[in-house]
Amino acid sequence: MSSLAPHPYPLSARLRDVRGSAIRDLLTLTARADVLSLAGGLPAADLLPRTRIADATARALAAPGAVQYSETAGVAALREVVAAIESARTGRDIGTGDVVVTSGSQQALDLLARVTLDPGDDVVVEDPAYVGALQVFQAAGAVLHGVPVDTDGMDVDALELLLLGGLRPRLVHTVASFHNPRGVTLSQARRARLCALADRYGFLVVEDDPYGLIAFDGPPPVPIAAHGERVARLGSASKVLAPALRVGWLVAPPEVSAGVERLKQSTDLCGSALTQTVAAELLADTTWFDEHLRSLRTAYRSRARALTAALDDAFGDAVTRSTPTGGMFCWVEFRDGRDTGALLPRAVDHGVAFVPGAAFAVGTPRTSALRCSFAGYPEPVLRGAVLRLAAAAT
Amino acid sequence: MSSLAPHPYPLSARLRDVRGSAIRDLLTLTARADVLSLAGGLPAADLLPRTRIADATARALAAPGAVQYSETAGVAALREVVAAIESARTGRDIGTGDVVVTSGSQQALDLLARVTLDPGDDVVVEDPAYVGALQVFQAAGAVLHGVPVDTDGMDVDALELLLLGGLRPRLVHTVASFHNPRGVTLSQARRARLCALADRYGFLVVEDDPYGLIAFDGPPPVPIAAHGERVARLGSASKVLAPALRVGWLVAPPEVSAGVERLKQSTDLCGSALTQTVAAELLADTTWFDEHLRSLRTAYRSRARALTAALDDAFGDAVTRSTPTGGMFCWVEFRDGRDTGALLPRAVDHGVAFVPGAAFAVGTPRTSALRCSFAGYPEPVLRGAVLRLAAAAT
Repeated sequence: MSSLAPHPYPLSARLRDVRGSAIRDLLTLTARADVLSLAGGLPAADLLPRTRIADATARALAAPGAVQYSETAGVAALREVVAAIESARTGRDIGTGDVVVTSGSQQALDLLARVTLDPGDDVVVEDPAYVGALQVFQAAGAVLHGVPVDTDGMDVDALELLLLGGLRPRLVHTVASFHNPRGVTLSQARRARLCALADRYGFLVVEDDPYGLIAFDGPPPVPIAAHGERVARLGSASKVLAPALRVGWLVAPPEVSAGVERLKQSTDLCGSALTQTVAAELLADTTWFDEHLRSLRTAYRSRARALTAALDDAFGDAVTRSTPTGGMFCWVEFRDGRDTGALLPRAVDHGVAFVPGAAFAVGTPRTSALRCSFAGYPEPVLRGAVLRLAAAAT
Repeated sequence: MSSLAPHPYPLSARLRDVRGSAIRDLLTLTARADVLSLAGGLPAADLLPRTRIADATARALAAPGAVQYSETAGVAALREVVAAIESARTGRDIGTGDVVVTSGSQQALDLLARVTLDPGDDVVVEDPAYVGALQVFQAAGAVLHGVPVDTDGMDVDALELLLLGGLRPRLVHTVASFHNPRGVTLSQARRARLCALADRYGFLVVEDDPYGLIAFDGPPPVPIAAHGERVARLGSASKVLAPALRVGWLVAPPEVSAGVERLKQSTDLCGSALTQTVAAELLADTTWFDEHLRSLRTAYRSRARALTAALDDAFGDAVTRSTPTGGMFCWVEFRDGRDTGALLPRAVDHGVAFVPGAAFAVGTPRTSALRCSFAGYPEPVLRGAVLRLAAAAT
């Protein structure tokens, strides 16, 4: 062996195109103790049922199986209760075998993309979009097409125009209920039309639904999957129980679910029997879970109203904003077209952070918009955060 | 919207080529209460430190952060203790920032393959190989090339011949210590030569090392990464603590680790803060962990010797077998060339299961071989299992 050639380390060409999450980078930058961060998408730490989780964990650990490898598709008890929840929400007869449990709904999205897409395939996303979806589809080599979102959610007319123009996407992704980042909800009429378009043009709707159960005023929106067959529904325990359980799920047509389960085998063998058993106990205890959801909804609604009232007081007609009816996010746009990317460092200097709209952009730049989460702080703190934002913006 | 065309559901062309895990399918078939299964790769349920995990879990849940989202690369306490363990094992100065925690080492392997490979790239694997690696590389679209394994591990001469013949693999994957399924260990001389070849030909060695700490007779083998820079080391808590923690890790050159961390962001956002905090406590409690490892090694060694003695008694010269010096597996080959795939259903009828050699084959068929795990049962049960196998084989 003589002189060594300085070989570069092997790196996939395709992966170079995937953008990092501006939001996760931002969270690092804004993780200063003196900054009130409205930037994150984390559920409220003070509302996570930690004591109940501790009790359930201690109970789960009484069984040897709780620390062993488990089935790739998830522990049976969890698949059963998820099937019951999904049957009730969609009005369909969803069986245990139809559910694949994943490491958060993010893993369901990643596996689904890898199972359904080949490089170069077309995928429709909302514009603005959930950034984690953009990353997943870029990693799968997809060609992204944005469809605008208005106050009734994805503009299905605009989607139909693309389809009439010849676009044949494999997937159409939507955060239909309490949209991240726009804070809006797809109307039921549009949900039905979306399913009809899926039947006609052969795409699969990806109904990414981590927030649906956090509805402020009445029952959760009827899922898209209640309107048609060509839907892969992604659910999550992260926002309604706790992120560290790493429990999400996929309910999809059998061919698709089977592919996801098979790919999950090689991706991580299985999830955690322990945290899945805990999630199963909490979701199956409907008396407790219903009461827990009620208190979550009440708290988040109150926080959302405090934030929007403070925004109205501070900015009045200088901004337009969404009116959250669930979920965790409010979307704000400055009417004077100011650049929220330039505003952010000034805001951090004033002790408050948000995500600039550009982070969620697909085609339209969104440079004068921003996303605020109202989930993480009690009302007085949210009001203080808005005062800081207003000071930074003047 | 008029008559509906019956569109098939979208499925990736590439994923159709990935073989399912014959082993996981087999585990389902052989999960009858009356069958003693030597087929699985599960650690011994009776040796998993469930009480210690329960104590650590209760402690971890005292902190709010234990149920929240966490850093993509893993909680800091776990990365720190893994860096210390890896530094001690490899004799290199590995920092916290060099460690990416994953959902078992399987996820590290999947992310690594996706980050380093483009479809059509060449990858060298051992023959016979760890099936989970074959699945990962197939899913990444790689072209697989098998290199034989003998009693000193991967035949590095055979690898060099392929390289001299023009093959330029991006990755060379090896379970160098206590090989799955062959039960052998790559010699230190071959480890050094493998690193020299990696430097010369520009590939990255994937040192997949879930079993290294379970060395029966003396210290764990010095890792390949002690011999060179072009190594990605994969470690796991599944075999030495518990699978349900879903804790594995990657230590690799910075460019590669950064790619893995970025891809993990979109793959599942992060692992579980709860189980990672538990793993950190157990690994950092070196007094407890060293004693736990000592008892694991003693038990596994005793089980290995019971199995091999029973095999010798029952089969004598009719088989050749590996002599396990660590890990969980023994490899057996019938000298008469009998088909172990055909033997399996008869064995199950006699109340014992194993994995036929063909499941691990890359090029060489291995139809007269089988893999037995000695990890799962105490000695008398292992002796009974071998008696059943002998009865099925006559």
